[in-house]
Amino acid sequence: MAIWLEQASQDFEQAFAAFLTTKREVSEDVNIVVRDIIDDVRSRGDEALAHYSLKFDGLDFNKTSMHVTAEEIDAAIAQVDPAVLDALKFASARIEKHHARQMPKDDIYEDDIGVGLGSRWTAIDAVGLYVPGGTASYPSSVLMNAVPARVAGVERIVMVVPANGGIINPAVLAAARIAGVEEIYRIGGAQAVAALAYGTQTIAPVAKIVGPGNAYVAAAKRHVFGTVGIDMIAGPSEVLVIADKNNDPEWLAADLLAQAEHDEGAQSILITDDADLGKAVEQAVERQLKLLSRSKTATASWRDFGAIILVENLAASVPLANRIAAEHLELAVDDPDALMAGVRNAGAIFVGRHTPEVIGDYVGGSNHVLPTARSARFSSGLSVLDFVKRTSILRLGPEQLRQLAPSAITLARSEGLDAHARSVAIRLNLEG
Amino acid sequence: MAIWLEQASQDFEQAFAAFLTTKREVSEDVNIVVRDIIDDVRSRGDEALAHYSLKFDGLDFNKTSMHVTAEEIDAAIAQVDPAVLDALKFASARIEKHHARQMPKDDIYEDDIGVGLGSRWTAIDAVGLYVPGGTASYPSSVLMNAVPARVAGVERIVMVVPANGGIINPAVLAAARIAGVEEIYRIGGAQAVAALAYGTQTIAPVAKIVGPGNAYVAAAKRHVFGTVGIDMIAGPSEVLVIADKNNDPEWLAADLLAQAEHDEGAQSILITDDADLGKAVEQAVERQLKLLSRSKTATASWRDFGAIILVENLAASVPLANRIAAEHLELAVDDPDALMAGVRNAGAIFVGRHTPEVIGDYVGGSNHVLPTARSARFSSGLSVLDFVKRTSILRLGPEQLRQLAPSAITLARSEGLDAHARSVAIRLNLEG
Repeated sequence: MAIWLEQASQDFEQAFAAFLTTKREVSEDVNIVVRDIIDDVRSRGDEALAHYSLKFDGLDFNKTSMHVTAEEIDAAIAQVDPAVLDALKFASARIEKHHARQMPKDDIYEDDIGVGLGSRWTAIDAVGLYVPGGTASYPSSVLMNAVPARVAGVERIVMVVPANGGIINPAVLAAARIAGVEEIYRIGGAQAVAALAYGTQTIAPVAKIVGPGNAYVAAAKRHVFGTVGIDMIAGPSEVLVIADKNNDPEWLAADLLAQAEHDEGAQSILITDDADLGKAVEQAVERQLKLLSRSKTATASWRDFGAIILVENLAASVPLANRIAAEHLELAVDDPDALMAGVRNAGAIFVGRHTPEVIGDYVGGSNHVLPTARSARFSSGLSVLDFVKRTSILRLGPEQLRQLAPSAITLARSEGLDAHARSVAIRLNLEG
Repeated sequence: MAIWLEQASQDFEQAFAAFLTTKREVSEDVNIVVRDIIDDVRSRGDEALAHYSLKFDGLDFNKTSMHVTAEEIDAAIAQVDPAVLDALKFASARIEKHHARQMPKDDIYEDDIGVGLGSRWTAIDAVGLYVPGGTASYPSSVLMNAVPARVAGVERIVMVVPANGGIINPAVLAAARIAGVEEIYRIGGAQAVAALAYGTQTIAPVAKIVGPGNAYVAAAKRHVFGTVGIDMIAGPSEVLVIADKNNDPEWLAADLLAQAEHDEGAQSILITDDADLGKAVEQAVERQLKLLSRSKTATASWRDFGAIILVENLAASVPLANRIAAEHLELAVDDPDALMAGVRNAGAIFVGRHTPEVIGDYVGGSNHVLPTARSARFSSGLSVLDFVKRTSILRLGPEQLRQLAPSAITLARSEGLDAHARSVAIRLNLEG
């Protein structure tokens, strides 16, 4: 009574494709607008993409192609300041070198009774990279997302980026080229996420979607999670600086503001055991705020979420840091190792006064996609591990099966699972 | 203008706790019922837990304590068949031994210009394990979730299990004891997930929640995701068996039914290059179905989702298997290694005719929590990695900063981030 599919039959491909998409569970609505867009892209494909790109980005696919051609990328690169190109290449090489060390190794072995066990790692076949448009269109983020995917061995990396009026930041296209991304579409929003997850006539679907985006993109990623994998949903950036009295307040103020300028929801925190330093830093922040082009954003962030925490001694900062679980933790103290030994929850640690967090944003080699909003308590920054998956392997011969069978049958029976017990017992002519 | 917190002040703890929970983003409603329950537990704590436990489980916390005592666990264990206890211990030891190999190693090093880089792994501090009540209350699942957490070094493992009328499956409590879980509460549903995520007067919050559950539990896990980590949302189980003609159809039928008996939404698929074998397996399935205590479930599953796929040759089964991306893949063929080399997407592979998938459910040593619904394309089974997190480390001295600064400043400026550029430049007396 089960359906039969036969590869030799002419309609096999169609039947198999339908079979793969057979719905076996009801999924839940998350956000009405996003759901409607996703449903529309699923049903109308490219036509829906054209509709939303015209509506949201003022972009007419009858005049501008959705696909960004190699020639367009060449032309964009020619517009980029050569110093920026060099810096992107320098950053990309450092990121690649560091991430290559993260590649997990297979572990295939036989245990003491001859059971073959193993973990085998393979790259995800195809990954989509969402890149925001406008002012949040950062070439450094392209490198941080695409380079680990390439290092992992992902064969197909697809980039989507909204292009208001058709324009994409040339440095973003340059970063894509440097990172080895060649398949690029000028689409964004929930419709781009839907296209990556479900595919359209033009865009083949991917298995995982990474990269930052606005609330619509985040909601769309949550919505398609399960159909495809997603990376973390990033919140506003944050830094925690732990500092002793032997610091230049101007340096620390600059570090706090480097977070604050990102977003009005960003958070900058200073923990120190020296009240005078705290006051000096606060004054320095006020002074430097006036110098910034993004002064309004940084002022709002520092006003609403900035904090200076005075502790009785530096050792007391460690349990606080573990509870804050900051995305970025700077240890601007004489003996950073003493503090670092006790830190359990932090996305990344920047050790010593000469390691401003900003180096990690660009050229340190480590990844700048890190857990926000206290999620460093249970999650990690982006790495090669996000672009591979592990297949577990089990291999028994008749002798190993004989040894393991009695316990398996006992447990299956105790759980009331007859067919489980029979599946083992039948091979040994035992009573299932 | 930022808030100041001072540890020396009497209200520091309160202020700090409030500070930690400062809401910086609006979160989205997922499911009205679940959201209401979660909100209620957040505001009323234990009182809300008592309310819902009385309502849904008929359990009065004025008569039965929410906390399961060590004496109650002792008493439960005394009720369990000693053969089952032995089998659970045997399984636990094998699971522990295999998972110990998965512990990732720190990697701290200096690169060619003296920049210190590193990845440091630490266990999650506290993990909650959801165990379903009723017929889905499987002791084997307790082992599969709790043992890897303990191997990872998680200090606090909290188990919640709904107890209709106060009763918990004694074998579940025995499995908890064997796996080293001592903090157990008889609560379930969305209210238990909320208690784990946000804490109550009795239950301290955890950082991650794992384990299977019904739709309310799954929705609650999705809802609290971000506040805590969650494992995958598991769908109905599935098996793909690739078989050549040299098989006993009864064995394969038993394997297909071992999946089908789990759930009406479970899926069992056979791929073979031999039509006669396919027909023989189908007949064997029909015969064996009548023998099962869970015949109704298995019949519905096989009827609605079962499949037999005939291929032209065995090699052709590999690309199909990669597209199905099955949770469980059995290779019941003469030369399983030839096929295995090409398999990229599978939660677990069971190699050869003497490795029924059921061995992996209980005593193989590998984990039985595996990606369902094609998610093996982008995700992996449960492992020690799910209970640890990685902190990235960066360490520069003045010389390294001097070398990396120009590229960092160039990129920061090109992205319009003044404060970023200043944070680096100020340390070198450069123009930011």
